[in-house]
Amino acid sequence: MKKETGSTFDATRRKVLIGTGALAAGAALTQLGGLVRKAGATGGSTEKWPWPYVKLDPAETAEICYNEWYRVFCGAAVINSIVGQLREKIGEPYTSFPADAFVFLEGGQVGWGTICGSPAGANIIANLIIGPRTAGIHEGHQIACDIMEWYSETALPTFTPKNPKITAELPQTTSDSPLCHLSVGRWMAEADKALGSPERKDRCARVAASTVYHLVELLNAWHDGNYEPTSVYSAGKEFGITGQPNCTDCHGKNVPEPPKA
Amino acid sequence: MKKETGSTFDATRRKVLIGTGALAAGAALTQLGGLVRKAGATGGSTEKWPWPYVKLDPAETAEICYNEWYRVFCGAAVINSIVGQLREKIGEPYTSFPADAFVFLEGGQVGWGTICGSPAGANIIANLIIGPRTAGIHEGHQIACDIMEWYSETALPTFTPKNPKITAELPQTTSDSPLCHLSVGRWMAEADKALGSPERKDRCARVAASTVYHLVELLNAWHDGNYEPTSVYSAGKEFGITGQPNCTDCHGKNVPEPPKA
Repeated sequence: MKKETGSTFDATRRKVLIGTGALAAGAALTQLGGLVRKAGATGGSTEKWPWPYVKLDPAETAEICYNEWYRVFCGAAVINSIVGQLREKIGEPYTSFPADAFVFLEGGQVGWGTICGSPAGANIIANLIIGPRTAGIHEGHQIACDIMEWYSETALPTFTPKNPKITAELPQTTSDSPLCHLSVGRWMAEADKALGSPERKDRCARVAASTVYHLVELLNAWHDGNYEPTSVYSAGKEFGITGQPNCTDCHGKNVPEPPKA
Repeated sequence: MKKETGSTFDATRRKVLIGTGALAAGAALTQLGGLVRKAGATGGSTEKWPWPYVKLDPAETAEICYNEWYRVFCGAAVINSIVGQLREKIGEPYTSFPADAFVFLEGGQVGWGTICGSPAGANIIANLIIGPRTAGIHEGHQIACDIMEWYSETALPTFTPKNPKITAELPQTTSDSPLCHLSVGRWMAEADKALGSPERKDRCARVAASTVYHLVELLNAWHDGNYEPTSVYSAGKEFGITGQPNCTDCHGKNVPEPPKA
């Protein structure tokens, strides 16, 4: 139960090798909420999945996302960089999806530092296009799991725009978490830059672009029938509570045991 | 900088009395991201705000939400209990909004314990209907701020359904945070019930219903022109970083100072 930061994802990965594997993670999905039922009959025409998709260019999407950040910030930039292209290439149902409504994802939802808008936006896109697990489709949920893990363990940003607004080199930091507060805080400490600095803003624009770059890779693989989930992490199964793998970051050495009854 | 859990919201509230007030919080909104620009011309017909809205009954919406939880879990239950009614009462653009896609909000986003799906779903609804601040409308953003604070400081659940699946009395707990991990964890500790227990599931269904009850109160007030923001909390302004007010919950007594440069 008591995992050390840094070893959590490696520990998770080892489980694949020793045979618990992806099926165990899949089975755990339902542990959180109970019975999975079929989607209700109340939905509109867009409640049918998957939505039509054509492969996008990861680097081109990331460039769009980088620039969109300066208009609508992290979450809506991720969403718009994909929805905007699919509106042009496909049309509906993307035309009717109100992408700009998601500006509030900024700063970990209206500045509260919870989930970073970049994975939050990526999770929306994956489930919007592929569909929810309650519809009997699991790849959207699994891509969201992969995004959460990738975001947490990757030194970000990975993407450098063609025409960056900040030309100085920006440090890369690993957040060990999908939370905005930890991701931004660890970068600010490393870079010694304030929240309001142009460097912090450009770092976050590049993090959004880096995230959508990886999301497009996963969506393209799914479209080609080549998508393989990489994350087998399930907090419900491993810890008996929803949560991140970085227990000691907040709990220190005294990680509590949740009730098992 | 170093606030104690329990006094944070009181401290925030006192600022209203001593005169920094809601305008200061409003000004801080742009501190996170830089310039606020007008919405782009790439949007579809749904990228015009506000969306049509008719007043809903808070208790009736909460009943729908409670039952929807057992189909699509917290975030999508909050979204569906409002979108479903507005599809019947109004039609488009609600008919085309893919509400079930948000099942992944469960467990703090695919079980990772970040923001609870109930406030995450409420934030989506407020900004979907009222619009994003980049469109020059601020009430959607402010209602999301109010929801985050209300969720954190309220002993939940506040709503009891007419026909509960669990008839035993369930304890109420205050999370001091909008995070699923803290909200569920504190309730599980108080109730001594496991994540997979029927009691924990029913508690979360009631928390979703409690949240949408309050959201409908706020939306109805906004529709009548009587909405007044209650939250003036801004982590960016108060702490120099995005975050929750419960600093000591994770940092203990050693709350770091973010760079100010």
